[in-house]
Amino acid sequence: MTPGHSLGLDFGTESVRAVVLDLESGSLAATAVAPFSHGVIDRSLPDGGDPLPHDWALQDSNDWLASMELATREALSAAGVEGISVKGIGIDFTASTVLPTAADGTPLHVLGPLRAEPHAWPKLWKHHAAQAEADRINAAAQRRGEPWLPRYGGKVSSEWLPSKALEVLDDAPEIYAAADRFVEAGDWVVWQVTDALARNACAAGYKALWHKRDGFPSIGFLRDLDPALEDLYASKLRGPILPPGQVVGGLAWQWADRLGLAEGTPVASPMIDAHAALPGGGVSGPGTLFIVLGTSSCHLLLAEREVLVEGMSGVVEDGILPALFAYEAGQAGVGDIFGWYVRSGRPLGAGSVDSPKDAAAIHDLLSGRAAALAPGESGLLALDWWNGSRTPLVDADLSGIILGYTLETTPEAVYRSLFEATAFGTRLIIEAFTAAGLKVDRVRVSGGLSRNDLLTGIYADVTGLPLEVCATQHASGVGAAMLGAVAAGAFAGLDEAARNLAQEPAKTVQPRDAHRATYDALFAQYLRLVDLFGRDPESPLKQLRALRPR
Amino acid sequence: MTPGHSLGLDFGTESVRAVVLDLESGSLAATAVAPFSHGVIDRSLPDGGDPLPHDWALQDSNDWLASMELATREALSAAGVEGISVKGIGIDFTASTVLPTAADGTPLHVLGPLRAEPHAWPKLWKHHAAQAEADRINAAAQRRGEPWLPRYGGKVSSEWLPSKALEVLDDAPEIYAAADRFVEAGDWVVWQVTDALARNACAAGYKALWHKRDGFPSIGFLRDLDPALEDLYASKLRGPILPPGQVVGGLAWQWADRLGLAEGTPVASPMIDAHAALPGGGVSGPGTLFIVLGTSSCHLLLAEREVLVEGMSGVVEDGILPALFAYEAGQAGVGDIFGWYVRSGRPLGAGSVDSPKDAAAIHDLLSGRAAALAPGESGLLALDWWNGSRTPLVDADLSGIILGYTLETTPEAVYRSLFEATAFGTRLIIEAFTAAGLKVDRVRVSGGLSRNDLLTGIYADVTGLPLEVCATQHASGVGAAMLGAVAAGAFAGLDEAARNLAQEPAKTVQPRDAHRATYDALFAQYLRLVDLFGRDPESPLKQLRALRPR
Repeated sequence: MTPGHSLGLDFGTESVRAVVLDLESGSLAATAVAPFSHGVIDRSLPDGGDPLPHDWALQDSNDWLASMELATREALSAAGVEGISVKGIGIDFTASTVLPTAADGTPLHVLGPLRAEPHAWPKLWKHHAAQAEADRINAAAQRRGEPWLPRYGGKVSSEWLPSKALEVLDDAPEIYAAADRFVEAGDWVVWQVTDALARNACAAGYKALWHKRDGFPSIGFLRDLDPALEDLYASKLRGPILPPGQVVGGLAWQWADRLGLAEGTPVASPMIDAHAALPGGGVSGPGTLFIVLGTSSCHLLLAEREVLVEGMSGVVEDGILPALFAYEAGQAGVGDIFGWYVRSGRPLGAGSVDSPKDAAAIHDLLSGRAAALAPGESGLLALDWWNGSRTPLVDADLSGIILGYTLETTPEAVYRSLFEATAFGTRLIIEAFTAAGLKVDRVRVSGGLSRNDLLTGIYADVTGLPLEVCATQHASGVGAAMLGAVAAGAFAGLDEAARNLAQEPAKTVQPRDAHRATYDALFAQYLRLVDLFGRDPESPLKQLRALRPR
Repeated sequence: MTPGHSLGLDFGTESVRAVVLDLESGSLAATAVAPFSHGVIDRSLPDGGDPLPHDWALQDSNDWLASMELATREALSAAGVEGISVKGIGIDFTASTVLPTAADGTPLHVLGPLRAEPHAWPKLWKHHAAQAEADRINAAAQRRGEPWLPRYGGKVSSEWLPSKALEVLDDAPEIYAAADRFVEAGDWVVWQVTDALARNACAAGYKALWHKRDGFPSIGFLRDLDPALEDLYASKLRGPILPPGQVVGGLAWQWADRLGLAEGTPVASPMIDAHAALPGGGVSGPGTLFIVLGTSSCHLLLAEREVLVEGMSGVVEDGILPALFAYEAGQAGVGDIFGWYVRSGRPLGAGSVDSPKDAAAIHDLLSGRAAALAPGESGLLALDWWNGSRTPLVDADLSGIILGYTLETTPEAVYRSLFEATAFGTRLIIEAFTAAGLKVDRVRVSGGLSRNDLLTGIYADVTGLPLEVCATQHASGVGAAMLGAVAAGAFAGLDEAARNLAQEPAKTVQPRDAHRATYDALFAQYLRLVDLFGRDPESPLKQLRALRPR
């Protein structure tokens, strides 16, 4: 084992976190965060100009580099680690966050003439203005019976690279033409610091429709969408695709200088931020469902074979760990629903939540009181579709339901029913995996909500599985550092890094037998509601949606 | 027409209101309220002793008399009317508020030895401790196929006289034996002030299972419940049954003295408070559905024939107007649901509602903002069963539902959906009436909520019927005064009094064509939910109820 450290760089939506990991003990030597100066650009470009439309979300690639430098130097300093001790660098990044560049990697938006053109800027993952393009892609893929479509639950998202590239072609064809490449931001950062470009299999697989054996969708499909799009994969996405952790190149001298590291330090092929949390959280093989519990939830499961899972978000060979198929599923609203309740689930005038601190205090109060209720005691049952259903129904037009209100219904009872609803949603995803023949024998959770004991207890009781809570609060950053450790040659692969470097779970929550029977009965009702309201094409929710102005 | 005035005495739950009505103009000369000193006795008896059980609600009959005197004198004084000018007295009272008395009318609870015995006290309408007795009555009636049961929607309430009498027999047989009679409080007040006892057809019909042609349930049925109960109707409820408005007797001299009125002033057979609002609100014949919009809602409809209406609360010939069948239906929760939302439909800590003034301000704010929403705009639909369903399902175990939540759902959208839900519930009742062949061609509303323009507009749009808002805020009291006017001989009957004395509606709200199509579509979904969740014996709401601790 190589003594020394690994540097993980975890690029989130608002900031980058640098993580310095000790390669011998696996302990986290230090971590530091640097926010992006321009944050999410969703109102107007930094130089001004017209307001951006409602669904837009851009970033400034210069922010990524500047904040990476700050966070790295601060973390090294806090750890008391010399740059020479860093043996490898790993990166994770939100996805699909994608930018058009010149042939040498220069982002188009930093070129003077194109600076005022919004389509020249990096589009953040949550830029949702390409929905019309996603709809066209889905319609064409369905019509043509494209074989890759079922791997994505039958639906390509507006967030993904092809939708965003087609949006540029539709709305700014001159930018599309000027773009030598479209690059995932994670790959672009690696390109900047190494002068070498590769695409990581994780983002390529989950966000650009790549498959290890079948490759990308066909040129015929692209032509069907738009003749001018036929060069997308062959030209603008050309180049090698590497599994995460494989070395892309060595740190260039200018960047060694800026970051205070050694020239030539190996830099790993990166991965998507949520997916990096899986090895970072210590999962190294099949059987453990890993959940990043956040505003929405991402469910990741490894397996040795490829099957079709109802409504999965994607399955990618080499997508996370080498030689394994990594399945992604998701719930479109989780913490967002709890936040909605505290923010809007109350009459106007009845107090107001002015700061995050107040909201946090309300969440704590509600969690505390809700913990005193027994399963089923409130008589409430909710369907967790406030933001639609991702897995298994893949239907954004669904909406939430609460049943069982009485004049005695308390706020904490409603709050608890929302927790339970998201747990039922997770059980539904587990049943989709097991119905497809995949094994799930435990759950491991990370993310801010994994600190809520009421929530994790309910998830264990509802799923009937032991639930392990990750010790680290920085699972993605640790996962990125593991990529760096693999690039450094400290481990043969990311699976071995995960087995050796991850901390033991902070705790394991066992399902309580006394709660399981009631939750089984409630879940049976939840399943009936899923059929009545989710699978029935005549669902009242569809009718209600049809009556709303678009 | 007799010149002069009529005195109406409207006995509510907390107070009695005296109304002085000018018999020539129909104008309200004055009104005055006097609260009951002991209010609702639901914790312990006034002299102390053991706490009363949870479901108990008693009153002190002395309060009724003392407050009647105060309110009458204050109203006459405010009106500047001499007692001699009052030509008739009418009374309405909550029902079934019932008390056991000695042969001379003395309430058992004022007799020294029985003062500490809770069962000797008057039981207020909302005393709910006789549920076990109501269940026994319903089971026996169903088993025997009692012909009167369908007239009451198949279910006798714990609030009604037979349930309360059987409760006394069960729990305090010595009180049952000591009671020469069980008397409705309205009839008892008339007995006190005239020395004459009759039973009013309204309370006897709706609350004691009396039918003009068939009489009371059989002795065989009573024996089936308990051999000791066989004398209930024949002895303890003996005596004449008179339609409301018919003269029971003249005012006794002691009471003429206490009230400042003339001895011998005719006193009318009384009626139930909600029912008195129908003539008081100016309804004098078939075709108009009269709704008292309150915490719950009472729906009254007149017709020339007796038919079975699904889930009706009762149908009584002579029950309100002479020679007509008066149908009663109801919604178990209306204003209560809106109040619940302001009180509890919000997280703890997010402000608090400390006084009625605050709650009223929140209701106003929510109504104002909700009025800016178009029908269907929010995507929400609710089922108004927070307190179960009275008509048409007669099922207290049902509970409320809200469908269509999204992360953008606002408090005012939820509030409006609750208004709409109660309107759909009223349309369901109208459809039960029309399905039975009864005519409903307009709606007239009274009660506090009738002042809410958003609510009345929604009711008109949802029902598709013109909706008239009563001008008076004291429809029950005015109705009581109309009873007095009939007793005075000023009118041939209560229908004629209603036609001549009632004020014109304050306004008529016409249904808006632009809203009707959307509400028809939403109501179609509401009907689907009624089937799925209300009529299906396997309703998820039943399953949820079964999981709750009783």
